[in-house]
Amino acid sequence: MLPAVNHRPPFNITRASHVVLNVADLAKSRAFYVDIVGLVVTEEADNICYLRGLSEACHHSLVLVQSSAASTCKRIGFRVFLEEDLDLAYQFFKAEGLPAEWVDVAHQGRTLHVSDPFGTKIELCAQMETRPRLHLERDKYKGAHAQRIDHYQIFAPNAYESCAFYSRLGFRNSEYLSHGEKLIGAFMYRKGTCLDLAIIENDGPCLHHFAYIVPESHDIFTGCDLAGIYGYAHEVERGPGRHGPGGMLFVYLRDPDGHRVELCDGHYQTIDIEIEPVRWDAASLSTNVRWGLPAPSRWYFEASRFEGAELIETPNKPKPQTLESYVQKLSEKN
Amino acid sequence: MLPAVNHRPPFNITRASHVVLNVADLAKSRAFYVDIVGLVVTEEADNICYLRGLSEACHHSLVLVQSSAASTCKRIGFRVFLEEDLDLAYQFFKAEGLPAEWVDVAHQGRTLHVSDPFGTKIELCAQMETRPRLHLERDKYKGAHAQRIDHYQIFAPNAYESCAFYSRLGFRNSEYLSHGEKLIGAFMYRKGTCLDLAIIENDGPCLHHFAYIVPESHDIFTGCDLAGIYGYAHEVERGPGRHGPGGMLFVYLRDPDGHRVELCDGHYQTIDIEIEPVRWDAASLSTNVRWGLPAPSRWYFEASRFEGAELIETPNKPKPQTLESYVQKLSEKN
Amino acid sequence: MLPAVNHRPPFNITRASHVVLNVADLAKSRAFYVDIVGLVVTEEADNICYLRGLSEACHHSLVLVQSSAASTCKRIGFRVFLEEDLDLAYQFFKAEGLPAEWVDVAHQGRTLHVSDPFGTKIELCAQMETRPRLHLERDKYKGAHAQRIDHYQIFAPNAYESCAFYSRLGFRNSEYLSHGEKLIGAFMYRKGTCLDLAIIENDGPCLHHFAYIVPESHDIFTGCDLAGIYGYAHEVERGPGRHGPGGMLFVYLRDPDGHRVELCDGHYQTIDIEIEPVRWDAASLSTNVRWGLPAPSRWYFEASRFEGAELIETPNKPKPQTLESYVQKLSEKN
Amino acid sequence: MLPAVNHRPPFNITRASHVVLNVADLAKSRAFYVDIVGLVVTEEADNICYLRGLSEACHHSLVLVQSSAASTCKRIGFRVFLEEDLDLAYQFFKAEGLPAEWVDVAHQGRTLHVSDPFGTKIELCAQMETRPRLHLERDKYKGAHAQRIDHYQIFAPNAYESCAFYSRLGFRNSEYLSHGEKLIGAFMYRKGTCLDLAIIENDGPCLHHFAYIVPESHDIFTGCDLAGIYGYAHEVERGPGRHGPGGMLFVYLRDPDGHRVELCDGHYQTIDIEIEPVRWDAASLSTNVRWGLPAPSRWYFEASRFEGAELIETPNKPKPQTLESYVQKLSEKN
Repeated sequence: MLPAVNHRPPFNITRASHVVLNVADLAKSRAFYVDIVGLVVTEEADNICYLRGLSEACHHSLVLVQSSAASTCKRIGFRVFLEEDLDLAYQFFKAEGLPAEWVDVAHQGRTLHVSDPFGTKIELCAQMETRPRLHLERDKYKGAHAQRIDHYQIFAPNAYESCAFYSRLGFRNSEYLSHGEKLIGAFMYRKGTCLDLAIIENDGPCLHHFAYIVPESHDIFTGCDLAGIYGYAHEVERGPGRHGPGGMLFVYLRDPDGHRVELCDGHYQTIDIEIEPVRWDAASLSTNVRWGLPAPSRWYFEASRFEGAELIETPNKPKPQTLESYVQKLSEKN
Repeated sequence: MLPAVNHRPPFNITRASHVVLNVADLAKSRAFYVDIVGLVVTEEADNICYLRGLSEACHHSLVLVQSSAASTCKRIGFRVFLEEDLDLAYQFFKAEGLPAEWVDVAHQGRTLHVSDPFGTKIELCAQMETRPRLHLERDKYKGAHAQRIDHYQIFAPNAYESCAFYSRLGFRNSEYLSHGEKLIGAFMYRKGTCLDLAIIENDGPCLHHFAYIVPESHDIFTGCDLAGIYGYAHEVERGPGRHGPGGMLFVYLRDPDGHRVELCDGHYQTIDIEIEPVRWDAASLSTNVRWGLPAPSRWYFEASRFEGAELIETPNKPKPQTLESYVQKLSEKN
Repeated sequence: MLPAVNHRPPFNITRASHVVLNVADLAKSRAFYVDIVGLVVTEEADNICYLRGLSEACHHSLVLVQSSAASTCKRIGFRVFLEEDLDLAYQFFKAEGLPAEWVDVAHQGRTLHVSDPFGTKIELCAQMETRPRLHLERDKYKGAHAQRIDHYQIFAPNAYESCAFYSRLGFRNSEYLSHGEKLIGAFMYRKGTCLDLAIIENDGPCLHHFAYIVPESHDIFTGCDLAGIYGYAHEVERGPGRHGPGGMLFVYLRDPDGHRVELCDGHYQTIDIEIEPVRWDAASLSTNVRWGLPAPSRWYFEASRFEGAELIETPNKPKPQTLESYVQKLSEKN
Repeated sequence: MLPAVNHRPPFNITRASHVVLNVADLAKSRAFYVDIVGLVVTEEADNICYLRGLSEACHHSLVLVQSSAASTCKRIGFRVFLEEDLDLAYQFFKAEGLPAEWVDVAHQGRTLHVSDPFGTKIELCAQMETRPRLHLERDKYKGAHAQRIDHYQIFAPNAYESCAFYSRLGFRNSEYLSHGEKLIGAFMYRKGTCLDLAIIENDGPCLHHFAYIVPESHDIFTGCDLAGIYGYAHEVERGPGRHGPGGMLFVYLRDPDGHRVELCDGHYQTIDIEIEPVRWDAASLSTNVRWGLPAPSRWYFEASRFEGAELIETPNKPKPQTLESYVQKLSEKN
């Protein structure tokens, strides 16, 4: 039931690399990502702040932009392997009749702005400025010790079509969610782990969350503790818990603008093509958790819009079991 | 507002030591405590199973008894320091007009059955058979690696009076909960950590939970994972989370009979008498958590009865913020 | 000073995948890898045992073969991406005048036996039988919880030439060791982490060690504790410690035949080609550690021969600072 | 073979509480204990700095005093339970003909200076100023996250006599080392864990080390990493490793004056008197480790003198297996 994967894609995307967010209060958002998540500031100016994880050598994996369009996402970024892949990407998107535009972006090499068929705003580049990795400089550790960006989860109004598009670009599914014969969630990767891009059927395009890897399970508790200390106790939105698909430990936090960031521990290795994607059968979108409470409704339905992208309603609204419906049922039993 | 502590108590209780539970299906309960909690079986017979934590040298800290009175607790046990403390305890309880009876209990030295003024069933002894500690035998580790029993939480219809009684026995408060001038929760210890006995005002006497210490924070996740694997995903009742009072990491599990066991990491040291107990002001019983969701209603109101003890209703029913009321409020906001 | 990397290599090796070892006592070696390292047995027969890490879906990453040539290594395995890569590999090795032979290997797809210019025995395949990943089945966890094979370290009589050969196959250096202008160690990868193949200049070809990833730092202690319990206390050869290059936490164990296995935690992500390899200047082979004692002499000089490969002496014997020379110097100071 | 324990001692010592060290460079020592060990500064003045662990409520557990007598220890401190215990202690030491003097010490209640029969300099008090515990203020965490002082190890020229003296004060052995019938090491406690005071037979009185508890095993690695970063890589003197007696994970660091501090994880609970102390048979002082290398000679023979105390040579010099002799033997085998 999954679309065919192109193992010789038209250009070589290697990984999820950076996300650019509009924020209302730059200082506040910067503090959130430094003090709680544990990112380090590579560089900053009046209206922009570039951050990276402790083990990242590239200039930024998170860019915060002071903006009146706060709580929207400007772009999610992917890296391509070689400069020539950028040119091949340009040709591909043009041939598809999709937006593709060369732009100048500070601290990056040649950069291409493109959109997928549902309007998800994407930025591709083959090079960034580099900085020393800091993962061994324990004296610089703060927050939850986030090491590197891992993946995005987006909403697409048609999960199958979105999955089919990325499959043509060489993305493969590690796991997927289906409702009967209908695909409602695709967990796709390029870099040899479970995930670079998760696609969930819902009104979109939206950025549901982006995720950073933390080194060990105790760092997830540390992130929660610091969220509590810095005034974000109620923004520990979901977890800590253990995912159904993928099986990582996770916690989801909402930042000052409501953007959602996941902290998770590492996951298994994919790479080999003979391994079948894991199928999860869902009566609905309710991603099974291994134990504990379901996610609250806002986790399922709230997401960051992409700046300038039109929202397309899905005809198949998700009907997950939420914390609210679970608690309602509990009350009725008693 | 706390009752006076007797620093030279009439007899010397040293620690919370063992709990005796009635269970409906001995094999099932045994599997729960071995495979999920990680206790080891010291000895077992047809209708009884004795378990201890990995670092415990005493014969048992948990006794499971097959019984038609399942889901009740027979006794909570405390150790006294010397044999003579048992005799002094007998005199004390007799003088108070409280039950006190010498009994024979297998694998224990002389044993005294007593009740506190609200009928909480208590067992005192000064000696047990011993077994080698197993905490260094990693090849025997299972479950969440529970090391040793730590404390009990009981319901008492009047928290102040209960706290006053145990204060006369030398128990001190590490922390306490009050509603204005009214004491509604007392976190009391003898052994130099935060807790041997927590007392919460509610219909009682009841055993709300007993707690085992796990070595590290990741063991709490392991406990949850195993609960999920062995069919107790919905019995991960509360957490993982970080306590307000005490500040430990915790998770609460319900066993096959609904008895509640807490897994928590270690806590701070008390001992010195000049340190003031920490006061927590609560509009009600709602124990603050540092982050995450409030406990569900059943965590607040369900508890194991003591076998043969009459339930006394408290005139001051707790009105905590529960998961249910929190979610209700969330829904109303939207 | 590093050889040029071919970013469009003649065929696509994706990762280090499996190692085949000769052992004297199959039952004893099996127990070592199951009880201490934590591998799971996928399948076994009279003279052979196939094992994999907890998160691996491929049939085996370690194959133990009962053999009179114990303490030698049969082959180290690499995966190629597509079946066609095998054919391209065959052509490449033939064109180089290097051994290349099609063989039948149980549980694998078409398999190619090749040797590098120094005689390192390599096995390539594009497919294996698969099995369910077990990383979420906590009830099956044993030993140090090894998740997956990560890399090999080999001895080559000329590190530069060996590095140059693998660079032509698309391997890149994450870090490297040099003595002045002379390359003496190359840490090379294909899969987007630090390492698939480390090459150290010494008499070779030899397998110095193979490494498994463990999930968290405490698992390294667990591996040591179990080594102690099962009679291998003196085979905790080096560590636990923190690597200079790569910066992982590590411990090295010697198995019953003297084969060396490393347990290490995860490492940073590579992938992007603009990031310069990290240079380590060594007066000799003495890999710097971040703290603690140098490795003992046997760690530097003992390694498993490849069965049937002739040993070539290097003219540039390493002269590392060893534990022995360090202790000697300490004694002289006093 | 152990001396009799007085279960009703003449006065009630409750725990090891604080150590006072002379240091050559106050700023440098302060940085060591803050940045590497993770202690917090409660208060400081020109020539003195008071520090405590993150979960400690008492004003200080480590006092650093700028002094020309650097690398000596002024006093090790014990707490007594009640004020009256101080008076009883005064009477006891006077009756024994041992030094006992009332002194004024800042931030402490009434304070008594005493010496044991071998001249170990001890400070007793029943009260200290208090400060809020900081263990939940994750934003203040540094270094290895040391939570609280745990124990001292001292050298005494006659271990049996020293052990007998402390046994009269109610100290009990959790474990002990003997050479045939001769006691050479006593691991003694008051507070219900393994240790408050370890006594090793060697030239004394000397302070071999004092120990702080860190919360989890990964904190031990963090301490080592930070030691490396701040220039103390060679002062990671022993470990990380797993103790024979007690079984804790440990690492020993030497501070700028050569004072030795141990970081260890928590240990098992003692308290109950029917549990027999664990006997370790040693051909000599060579404390067995569970795995890994023996301690270097300097760990066995170097220790901080007590300021103003005369050194008494033991007639029974320890002859442990050291790293040096182990390596020597390794070399001879090859």
